[in-house]
Amino acid sequence: MRIQIIGFGVIGQGLARVLLRKEEELRQRYGLEVSVVSITDISGTAHAEEGLDLRKALSVARETGAIVNYPGAKEMSGVEAIEEIEAELVVEATPSNIKTGEPGLSHMLAGFKAGKHVVTSNKGPLALKYRQLVSEAERNNVEFRFEASVGGAMPVINLARETLSGDRITAIEGILNGTTNYILSRMTREGLSFEHVLREAQELGYAETDPTYDIEGIDTASKLVILANAIMGIDATFSDVKIRGITRITPEAIRLAKERGYVIKLIGEVKNSHLEVSPRLVPETHPLNVDGALNVAMLHCDVAGEVTVVGKGAGAIETQSAILSDIIAIWKKVKG
Amino acid sequence: MRIQIIGFGVIGQGLARVLLRKEEELRQRYGLEVSVVSITDISGTAHAEEGLDLRKALSVARETGAIVNYPGAKEMSGVEAIEEIEAELVVEATPSNIKTGEPGLSHMLAGFKAGKHVVTSNKGPLALKYRQLVSEAERNNVEFRFEASVGGAMPVINLARETLSGDRITAIEGILNGTTNYILSRMTREGLSFEHVLREAQELGYAETDPTYDIEGIDTASKLVILANAIMGIDATFSDVKIRGITRITPEAIRLAKERGYVIKLIGEVKNSHLEVSPRLVPETHPLNVDGALNVAMLHCDVAGEVTVVGKGAGAIETQSAILSDIIAIWKKVKG
Repeated sequence: MRIQIIGFGVIGQGLARVLLRKEEELRQRYGLEVSVVSITDISGTAHAEEGLDLRKALSVARETGAIVNYPGAKEMSGVEAIEEIEAELVVEATPSNIKTGEPGLSHMLAGFKAGKHVVTSNKGPLALKYRQLVSEAERNNVEFRFEASVGGAMPVINLARETLSGDRITAIEGILNGTTNYILSRMTREGLSFEHVLREAQELGYAETDPTYDIEGIDTASKLVILANAIMGIDATFSDVKIRGITRITPEAIRLAKERGYVIKLIGEVKNSHLEVSPRLVPETHPLNVDGALNVAMLHCDVAGEVTVVGKGAGAIETQSAILSDIIAIWKKVKG
Repeated sequence: MRIQIIGFGVIGQGLARVLLRKEEELRQRYGLEVSVVSITDISGTAHAEEGLDLRKALSVARETGAIVNYPGAKEMSGVEAIEEIEAELVVEATPSNIKTGEPGLSHMLAGFKAGKHVVTSNKGPLALKYRQLVSEAERNNVEFRFEASVGGAMPVINLARETLSGDRITAIEGILNGTTNYILSRMTREGLSFEHVLREAQELGYAETDPTYDIEGIDTASKLVILANAIMGIDATFSDVKIRGITRITPEAIRLAKERGYVIKLIGEVKNSHLEVSPRLVPETHPLNVDGALNVAMLHCDVAGEVTVVGKGAGAIETQSAILSDIIAIWKKVKG
């Protein structure tokens, strides 16, 4: 299977590392031989018909920060690479942009138009243009999978759509952002203020320099939109979500909750076509009470009752679990 | 798809109810029309080429307790029904027997021999003869699925094998028995003795009159064997499990654990080919700390890190989530 990687930051490089590590295993378990025929980043595109040397690509990226320094690479954009290079599948792994969805949106649409399957970790385009993307994929008769766009290594989309195939999902609640969960968990455990824990999290690199997306609930809302569309078939977009973040949570509120056997968590919920992100009281022994940077989603099912899945919300390697399983699912489907 | 139901107790009847409820939905979502051509219980077999009237079968079972009272039913055994009646798939839902695996074992083998796919909720045969069953199914080129045999509506087997297809599972820990978890949860919350809570659970019907299978860890061990085989490819059987139950857990032990931020849970673990069931200390905020009659399994994955799934461990309807998803998976595979 000939694959193009568009975006060669944390996620793209993580994929290259895991493909190197799993080469033999993928062949043995699934008869799948992955050949990465091109890698594109902002600097250009490395391309080799017979497959790139992933070790070399990783060392070029590490040492120079620009894939254009790979031998023979050109100043070719992602869209050009998708249009011009022969391949079956595009992995879109550029950074998420919740305002325009670009450049991911153009990459995905170019992929569909070129008759290529698309696997992505990029939630921006999905939170903005879910219907358009899915219908373009259908129109071009290609697969479009995006497990990695929500919850990193927490496999909630494929769990709901495939593993729980006999159930209709009637509501979803979850903690979909690891940074805010880390902040709230530390505030709970140590009685510290929001500002104090946020500053420490930024110093440790757990929170962005501009933490707005996380702490104001925007990241959670983007993921909630994807779940509402992909799992419940609700035609929602980012602007439909009612959002309140965690910036006004005080140690006192947390302490009062604790005395009554509750914790405060930033919960995204979709129920009766209503999408909301807000801090909520969760009973201490409830499955949604997970600690640290974990993500969790509780699916309300019409047969199974509640099914909850917990996993790491991010991570260069962990997220590859989702990308790999999407690639394997497409491989199984196309080989028949 | 022509289906035979063998065993018409809680699980078999639950399936009939859910098939009635989901008839239209299965047709629309999957193009799947299920026709139950025979139902067998200990009294005999009801059979209709064009499909049984499931409402009538349920009322016969409810009112007389014996399917032989269905119009035209015969004193035909499960094995005979499997051998003689035309169908594509057998749902084996007889009670679990951890000593001999019978009668489920014979039903499953008869199903494979007759070229029929088998879906089961019956853990006994799997805990005793996993390898034999899987290789017989393979030899006869039929599908064999058993999500319902472990954890009721907690979809751990298909999650590990299909949703997490890019991961190798290196260890599994879980709470696989709802009755013991209910007992331990109540002991923890209310400070009551094991004997007291067990007696109440029996009066409420949450625990069997002979609770040995549950409280001595035998049920957990059976399920652990299935997970070790199905998910990790370890060729283990019931006698390989080191087992300690919960009968000697005191309120004092639970109180001491609680003071240090831990709970005591009956954990089944498979790791480095070692299978063990024993009470363990679990940190209060750990994903394995789930309450009441819930089941939970934590999969240690080589890419995703830890992925945890929580669901209802039992229930006449809830368990159908697993059976239905197995039937749908087979349907998708055979229709191509």
